[in-house]
Amino acid sequence: MGDPAGVGPETVARVIANHRKGDYRLVVLADPRILEDVSKALRLNIDHVAVTSRPQRERFAAEAVTLIPVKVNLGRDTKAGRPTAATGRAAITFVEKATELALLREVDAVVTAPIVKKAINDAGYFFTGHTDFFATRTNTAKYAMCFVADNKRVAVVTGHLAIRKVHGRVRLVRIIRTITLFDEFLQTIGVREPRIAVAGLNPHAGEEGLVGGEEQAEIKPAVEACRVQGILVDGPISAEAAFLNHLEGKYDGVVAMYHDQGLLPMKVLAPHRTVNVTLGLPFVRTAPGHGAALDIAGRGVAKIDGLRNAIQLAAQLTQAARRP
Amino acid sequence: MGDPAGVGPETVARVIANHRKGDYRLVVLADPRILEDVSKALRLNIDHVAVTSRPQRERFAAEAVTLIPVKVNLGRDTKAGRPTAATGRAAITFVEKATELALLREVDAVVTAPIVKKAINDAGYFFTGHTDFFATRTNTAKYAMCFVADNKRVAVVTGHLAIRKVHGRVRLVRIIRTITLFDEFLQTIGVREPRIAVAGLNPHAGEEGLVGGEEQAEIKPAVEACRVQGILVDGPISAEAAFLNHLEGKYDGVVAMYHDQGLLPMKVLAPHRTVNVTLGLPFVRTAPGHGAALDIAGRGVAKIDGLRNAIQLAAQLTQAARRP
Repeated sequence: MGDPAGVGPETVARVIANHRKGDYRLVVLADPRILEDVSKALRLNIDHVAVTSRPQRERFAAEAVTLIPVKVNLGRDTKAGRPTAATGRAAITFVEKATELALLREVDAVVTAPIVKKAINDAGYFFTGHTDFFATRTNTAKYAMCFVADNKRVAVVTGHLAIRKVHGRVRLVRIIRTITLFDEFLQTIGVREPRIAVAGLNPHAGEEGLVGGEEQAEIKPAVEACRVQGILVDGPISAEAAFLNHLEGKYDGVVAMYHDQGLLPMKVLAPHRTVNVTLGLPFVRTAPGHGAALDIAGRGVAKIDGLRNAIQLAAQLTQAARRP
Repeated sequence: MGDPAGVGPETVARVIANHRKGDYRLVVLADPRILEDVSKALRLNIDHVAVTSRPQRERFAAEAVTLIPVKVNLGRDTKAGRPTAATGRAAITFVEKATELALLREVDAVVTAPIVKKAINDAGYFFTGHTDFFATRTNTAKYAMCFVADNKRVAVVTGHLAIRKVHGRVRLVRIIRTITLFDEFLQTIGVREPRIAVAGLNPHAGEEGLVGGEEQAEIKPAVEACRVQGILVDGPISAEAAFLNHLEGKYDGVVAMYHDQGLLPMKVLAPHRTVNVTLGLPFVRTAPGHGAALDIAGRGVAKIDGLRNAIQLAAQLTQAARRP
């Protein structure tokens, strides 16, 4: 459900109201009262949703949508658009339960609705986001953040990291790991022999060493190490050229060095359709690429494309993982 | 003409071949032999080009295109796509002459074709690009790099700077200067009461201080100082939201904190149409947003949209500057 003060409740309610039996089943971790309130306010019919407090795979199989009630205490004065420590704590409670179910293999994939980092920090959880949360809780050291929109894909070497710290983390091992995870991901979604463009860290990929030196010291050796492993990867290339070549079909995806370098091109090209995927976790995890959108939360105008695409990609990745 | 090994000669030749008398006159600083060779190779008619070695405003006025021959020595083995110290020196020679003419007021605006930074550095000129060159040669301390494509506009607080140095230059005074110059620019191109969005430096504009601190320490006070001056400016906003709001028309332009944050969204939305403008110089200066494109140079396939748009914007800015 995400942070109850954000657009999570309304987008989740709209998606489950529309969901009937199909290729996959939805299991919703949410506070039943919040879900009912938002459904009533938006005049959504969620009567087909089954409810169980015994979250087991065989129970989920029979229903299009199963709700696992997770009651949270928000206090009286909680309003849409106004996250608090209580809404932050609620959001964490939902993903903690989801992680548990995924690790127990009761579910195949976890899709998260947006949280508010300030709220989860106010609640005493010091994660910079979902990605960190899942990596820590599943004891995963080797993971990467990835964005997907239509047939555009980008993985980032560093995530929710201050710009002043980025250059210190753009290091050989981390770059190799991101390229490798991204190559596996592209194969999983059906790209045969993926061709990957790696962006430089600095403007124009460092102008052959004239601007910053990370391209020569870290990125080029990482690309070469991956080529030796048989990955079809080129770089470092200036970020704009990497994306333009990707858009023209010369590459199947881009490895960017930091958050905005990867996310900005995706967001301006596909504002509402971008999906966030965490690579390297022991289970599939996706999320809409947008945030809690506090400015419009509670008004029922939030687009559901992001959440719907996130669910569809999670289903696709689950099915692909099952193939021999 | 730009670096003779890049796409400068062919794009300049194609633009002048198409140019007849109109709202503005073109004065071309180029090596006549290179210009003839490329025109022959591309079967372009440049017979209408007047030639003069006395570069004076009154002579230019009578002709659609005037060539000022600037002979350069490239050596025998110079090839398209292979810049050298000699081609770098040639590129600098062209812009030096152009700067001189602009400072003498013989021309109103300077439009540059792409140079190759490695080549100009090899030639012993330690500029990171045209922007730096013009600022230094005209003794301009307060300038800013700006990108324009169609009705999308962005100014950047830092330019060709290594990512590791960006946070140290995202400082109050520099941000105020960029906002102020950008506000003046938007008014010059005809936007009344420009509304400006200022992007944060860090992912999601620092998540209210959780990721980096430059938003609170530098950007917010700069935005507030500009609002006190009457500029309609909001921020810091996450970079993706700033651009999306701009695309939706809520803002007339975006101030980004660094090169890729500003250029990437423009480039993926308008790959060939982006124009680079230097704000704050004593004369108008524009350039196509693309580089020397060494991979395709000499084949006659380079698009001329960037150069043509750069010339048109230069003409527009010149005319606006003449208005009372």
